[in-house]
This record gives sequence, C-alpha cells and structure tokens, in this order.
Amino acid sequence: MKLDEASVLEFHRGGKVALNMPHPVHTVEDLCLAYTPGVGKAVLHLDKHPEDAFDYTAKGKTVAVVSDGTAILGLGDRGPTAAIPVMEGKCVLFKSFAGVEAWPVVLDNAREGGAKTGKTDPQRVIEMTQAIAPMYGGINLEDIASPACFDIEDKLQELLDIPVFHDDQWGTAVITLAAVRNYALAVGKDFNSLQVAMSGAGAAGMRIREMLIEAGVKQVISCDARGVIYKGRPDLSGRKLLAAEDTPCRTLEEAMKGADVFIGVSVAGAVKKDWVKTMAPYPAIFAMANPDPEIRPEEVAEAMGDKPYVMATGRSDYPNQINNVLCFPFLFRGALDVRARKITMGMKLAAAEALANAARIPADDATKALYAGETLEFGPKYLLPKPFDRRLRALVAPAVAAAAIKEGVARITDFDLDAYRAALEKETAQ
Amino acid sequence: MKLDEASVLEFHRGGKVALNMPHPVHTVEDLCLAYTPGVGKAVLHLDKHPEDAFDYTAKGKTVAVVSDGTAILGLGDRGPTAAIPVMEGKCVLFKSFAGVEAWPVVLDNAREGGAKTGKTDPQRVIEMTQAIAPMYGGINLEDIASPACFDIEDKLQELLDIPVFHDDQWGTAVITLAAVRNYALAVGKDFNSLQVAMSGAGAAGMRIREMLIEAGVKQVISCDARGVIYKGRPDLSGRKLLAAEDTPCRTLEEAMKGADVFIGVSVAGAVKKDWVKTMAPYPAIFAMANPDPEIRPEEVAEAMGDKPYVMATGRSDYPNQINNVLCFPFLFRGALDVRARKITMGMKLAAAEALANAARIPADDATKALYAGETLEFGPKYLLPKPFDRRLRALVAPAVAAAAIKEGVARITDFDLDAYRAALEKETAQ
Repeated sequence: MKLDEASVLEFHRGGKVALNMPHPVHTVEDLCLAYTPGVGKAVLHLDKHPEDAFDYTAKGKTVAVVSDGTAILGLGDRGPTAAIPVMEGKCVLFKSFAGVEAWPVVLDNAREGGAKTGKTDPQRVIEMTQAIAPMYGGINLEDIASPACFDIEDKLQELLDIPVFHDDQWGTAVITLAAVRNYALAVGKDFNSLQVAMSGAGAAGMRIREMLIEAGVKQVISCDARGVIYKGRPDLSGRKLLAAEDTPCRTLEEAMKGADVFIGVSVAGAVKKDWVKTMAPYPAIFAMANPDPEIRPEEVAEAMGDKPYVMATGRSDYPNQINNVLCFPFLFRGALDVRARKITMGMKLAAAEALANAARIPADDATKALYAGETLEFGPKYLLPKPFDRRLRALVAPAVAAAAIKEGVARITDFDLDAYRAALEKETAQ
Repeated sequence: MKLDEASVLEFHRGGKVALNMPHPVHTVEDLCLAYTPGVGKAVLHLDKHPEDAFDYTAKGKTVAVVSDGTAILGLGDRGPTAAIPVMEGKCVLFKSFAGVEAWPVVLDNAREGGAKTGKTDPQRVIEMTQAIAPMYGGINLEDIASPACFDIEDKLQELLDIPVFHDDQWGTAVITLAAVRNYALAVGKDFNSLQVAMSGAGAAGMRIREMLIEAGVKQVISCDARGVIYKGRPDLSGRKLLAAEDTPCRTLEEAMKGADVFIGVSVAGAVKKDWVKTMAPYPAIFAMANPDPEIRPEEVAEAMGDKPYVMATGRSDYPNQINNVLCFPFLFRGALDVRARKITMGMKLAAAEALANAARIPADDATKALYAGETLEFGPKYLLPKPFDRRLRALVAPAVAAAAIKEGVARITDFDLDAYRAALEKETAQ
C-alpha cells in the first residue's frame, strides 16, 4: 500500500467532495422550478412550516462535519485549512458507508485567515456552528481540542434541536465498549466485574470511561500524564474531578496490576512490557494511540509468551482494529432517518450493542472476499466487524433509530423498523 | 408549465444538493488514503503550504452560496431556513451552467433557531462568513437585505483573499450593462450619450448605476420611493448621497421625459403608460421588478402604438429576459480558474462585454432547438443570449480570467487563455 506523501497528495488532487444534483436543470421548466419564479413557493411554504425543511431541502439527510482544526488526528493544532482533507474524508465515509450526505465545515476560529494560531475560543465555535446549523439534520464535531470540546458539544446540543456528536469523544467510546463486551464474551469473563485500567484522559478517554460505567462496569481507573486520577488528587478539575476513583493506585503500572483490560488512548510507549505480565489471566490490551500504540503488539507477544491474551489497536495492519468508521456513519444514519432531536446515551449504547452483535454473526461472502486471509470468526482475534462489512448499515442504523424512538427524541415515531431494515439491506445489496 | 405549490414542492423533495465523491472509497487502501493514516500526510503538507488547498481540497473549485435570508427574492425577510431552497437552486445553477462546485451556507443571523426575526446584524454576517471561508475559493452572497449588503460585501472582500460577490448587487448590474450596450448598438445610438432614468435605489439599483457610469454613460438619474435622488436632497445618506445627480428633475415622471433608457428595479406599477410616451425616440424600457414589472409589456405596447421601442423584463415569458444566471456561474468560473483574490470592476465589465458580444454571434443549433419559436437574431428583441446557450461558458469565463490576470488579482498568471477556452468548449460539447 502506497501511503507516501506524493501518493496521498495525488489521491487528493481536486478534493474529495463536490456537488451532486438530485434534480439537475436541463430545461427552461427545470430552471423555473429549481430557481425563480417556482422556488418562491417553496420559500413561502418553509416560512410557514419550517419543519418541512426536512422534506424539501437537503437538511433531512445531511450532516455537517465541523472542525476548527485545533486537534487534527494526532497532529495537534494545525488550523482550519489543514483540517479540510480530514473533514472531506469524513464526508466521503459518511456517504460510502451509510448513504448519509455530508459536507465539511471548517471554522476559522481565530480570524487569522485559515492559519493555526494556538488559540481556541469555545464560545466562537459554538456561535459559528449554531449559525450554520439550519441547513443540516445533524452536526458531527471533529478534531476539536480537549477540554474545550466537552463544553462545545454540551452547549451546542442544548441550543440545537438536531443531533450533535463529537466523534473523537464518543465514536471511539462506542466501538471500545463493543470490543470490551465481546472480549468478555469471547474469553468467558463477566462484563460487569471487569477491572479496567486506562491511559489517557482526553476527549476519548473520558467518554470511554463513562460508557463502560454506563454499561455496567464497576471500576475504571483512569490515568493522565501525571498518573492515576484518584479521589483527593489536588490538581483535578472539570471532567477529571468527576472521573476520580477511590483507589490506592497512584501509577498506571499499579493500576494495571490484576486488571482484566488495559485501554490506551494516550501516547506511543506509555506501557512497559513488564506491566502487561502483571495483568489478570487472559487480559485484553487495547492500545489505541495512533499511529503508534501505547505498546506494540510484538512487545505484548514477547511479554505474554504462551499465555493467552487479546490485543487490539487503532491500526488496520493488526487484528481487532478499533476504527471510528464502524460507528459514526451508522449512528447518524439511524438518527437522521427518524429525525432525532439529539443523540442520547441510550442511542450510543444501542449502537455499541448492535456492533458487538454484528461480530458474532458469521461474515458474508463479500466481506470474506475483501478480507481474505484475515480472521473473520468470532473470538479473541475478531472482536469487531470489519469496516467494509456491508451488513453494518442494516444492523446498526435500525438499532439507533429504535433507541431514539424509545427515548422520545425522534420526530418520526410511526416508524416501521422492519421495513426500514429491509430498505437498508436493499441499499447495501446494490 | 406547472409552477403551483404542489408541483414545486414535489420537485424539491429530498433537496436539490447532495454529496458527490470524485474519489470514492471502495477498498481498504482507499480508506487509508482518504482517511487515516494517509490523510495525515495531506494535513501536514497543507499546514506548511496552505495555498496548496486550492490543489488538494475542493477549495479551488467550490463557491459558498451564503445568505441570512433577510431579503429572499422579492419576498422579504423570511429567515435562513426558508432561504435554503433558493441557495440550493443557486448551487445547482453554478454547476449546471458553468461546472462550478457550490454549497449552500444559510446563516442563522439572529440566534433564533432558523426563524426570521426582522433583525439584521451586518457584523455577525461578516464574522460568520469569514469563519467558514477557508473551505472555499469564492463567496457568492445572496438575498441579504439592503443597505446592510453593501458593507457586508465591502468588508468581507477586504478581509478575505478570495472573490466575494453579492449577486443581487452586481449580477443584475453586469447583465443590464450588457443589455444597454446592445440596445445602443441595435438601434444605432451612441452608448456614452444615453440618457438613463432609473426606478429603485437598493442593492441592484445602486450598482447598475455605478456600472453604467463606469462604462461611460454620462448621467443616470436614479429615483427611490420619494422621487429623484438629486444633489442637495436633505434626506440622503450613504450610497444614495454618492448617487445624487445635479438635475432639476424631482420625480420619476420628469426623469423619464426625453430619456433613452428606463431601468426599473423597484416595484410593480411604478411607471405609468403616459410617461413612456414622453421618452426619446426608440426608447428602451427595462422593467425588471419580479414577478410583476414596473409596467407590463402590454401597457408599453399600447402606449407606443406604431412607434419602435425595446422592452426587457426579468421574466422568461417575454423577450429580452434579464436573468442573473447569465452572469454569476461564468464570472465565478473564470475567477476560480485563475484563483483570483477578488472580483474587480474590470472583471465585471469584461463579463458584461463578453455577454453583449455573445448575443451578436449567431446562436448555435442546440440553443435554437431549445428556444424554438423565439427570436435568436441580434436586434431589439434579442439583446441578450439565452440562459441555456451552452457557448456562454467558453465565451464569458475566459474574458473574466483574462481581466483578473490583467488587473493583477490572479494567483495563476502563466495561464494559456486559448487552451482554457478550448477546454471549456470541450466541456460544454459533452
């Protein structure tokens, strides 16, 4: 696979997004319908019935992929212009994987002509995103620095009546929960009794912890660069204060002793080989720092020797890739199709369960052909479905839609879930 | 032609814009190029070379169609949600007519959840448009109320290094100039000596006046609802103060006496039949209020009897339609293709000249087939080319590109205009 700069730039030439026209204009009549004078009728209708924008504009199927470029991938603050290729890529994934329309919205947060400035003004990101929202059925926030991202997401969801979802917080959390669920099942441990040690307390780290606890895990010991986030640690504030556990552990090394699961969303090399040896029998090591994990799979193999263990990373070149593309396209597809007003914890949990279930169903022939030579049978080396498993659309989106209806955040409530599932199956069979 | 509400809404179902993917994602390799890890290389490249966003993102070919919905068509302030169908329509025209990518950006100017509020805050529109600008190669402002629109355009063009163009101001002005040029030619009058009377001193009215004077017309007497805008009128301020003429006329009726050209961008019924009779021999009546003109063509016909005259309106059901779609797609196409930093007066004048010239060239067979039964021979009933004349792309865009290079606002200066013209001809021949 050629991933050098020249190959990447050549692939990007001309950009990855463009306009598609569901109703092209070929004749004078088309022109009169799409533009003046006909369009005036649509304007007056929407003025009286603004909710009908879901029907008569692109709003109902379209997500804005919004970023200020303050935390792009693992590359830090690079500004809105450098963020464009990532947002364009995300839009392509929305459409390719789940048939969701999407458009990149990069925000010049600091009024410096698209350059990075090291400044983040959460209030401005909130105002600007609110300003562009009328066009969209949902907002996917992306690559916004922590801790500003927490307030930005919370406040926007409060202000807007469409789903707001910061993928760097929740996307990884949903997929990690699915993977941990299936780890417990695959090795025969009780999910609720799992001991979890985490490295990383940023956007993803905080939300992974929350979702695991929401799903029933009793204790998750989180560490940041200074060690364990324990009750009484004097330097804690904000989300970290809420995440403080009552534990005698003070270091990641101590937290990993006897732990069933290690989850890393921090930096390369954060975990030593010797620490892995001290974990509970048949442990799970989810080392998700990108592109280089907290500990390399080869090092874990050396440390564990003949003893069984489960390994997962964020990379596609090892088994059990934790890839956000497994979640956001399908989560938004389900949310958009019932015109959800927000994305609730129940919808995220439903997405995680549906994803976990998808890995337990035998893979279809199309997926097998695409991933020839890789393990596709449920077990320690196949905890999660593959990104190009086309069944995910029909497996995950209806679960999210059902949860939205159940939780009372769907505008459409007379929704035939079986017909919906069948329609999605038909879409992906094409 | 069915233009009732039900037909219009049916045409609009699902919206008029969607995502097109120049580089779809089918394989694991595509995924690694379009998204992580490959995309990181594009991010780092753009961080170092932000100008390369024109090459490696959609920026170079894409225009934002921006509105706050404060003056939608002739329907007044209807807010951003009701504005969506117009902006979507505009995007479709950009692409259909000139191959320009475009995306609607409706701005919730007043923080009221997409509803109209009667409030316009120019500073907020400026800030919000500046914020979303890094993604785009040009900004087309649309349906923003006057007089706020003047400052918004000026200030944004000052802040941004991409073209900013308020179509309601300049689009009509460019096309009107082309029509007046060809009127003079068709009836054998000297363009510079034309006497012009105008009704309407809003966005379009002020700019039409400016462009006519820029092109060489000596005197244009403008009227607003209170009558002639004359030097010394006590209630004048802003643009109107600059537009005040040294004239004894005080009413539109007086201004029309002996005038060669009447230009209306005001309201239906603003002109009486008797006034038309007092104009100079072989006059031009450009009554462009939409959907109902200042004076109906039938009334002008009655008033003029056997005497020759030229009539133009904004409507497609009479000869000489002044339609903005003749300008904005091609103007932006030329500006984008040389990566212009702004749209100068010289570029607008070049567009007007190219449009005027296009009407003097015999129409091609495709255009004749589409407009069977209509006059397509240069003269009083065919002053302007037809919107679906496919040659316009290759006739107008290169003229704009050449002007941008000449005026020093093009980023690309080693530009082969002949090759460019040939490429555009090839595009439209498809």
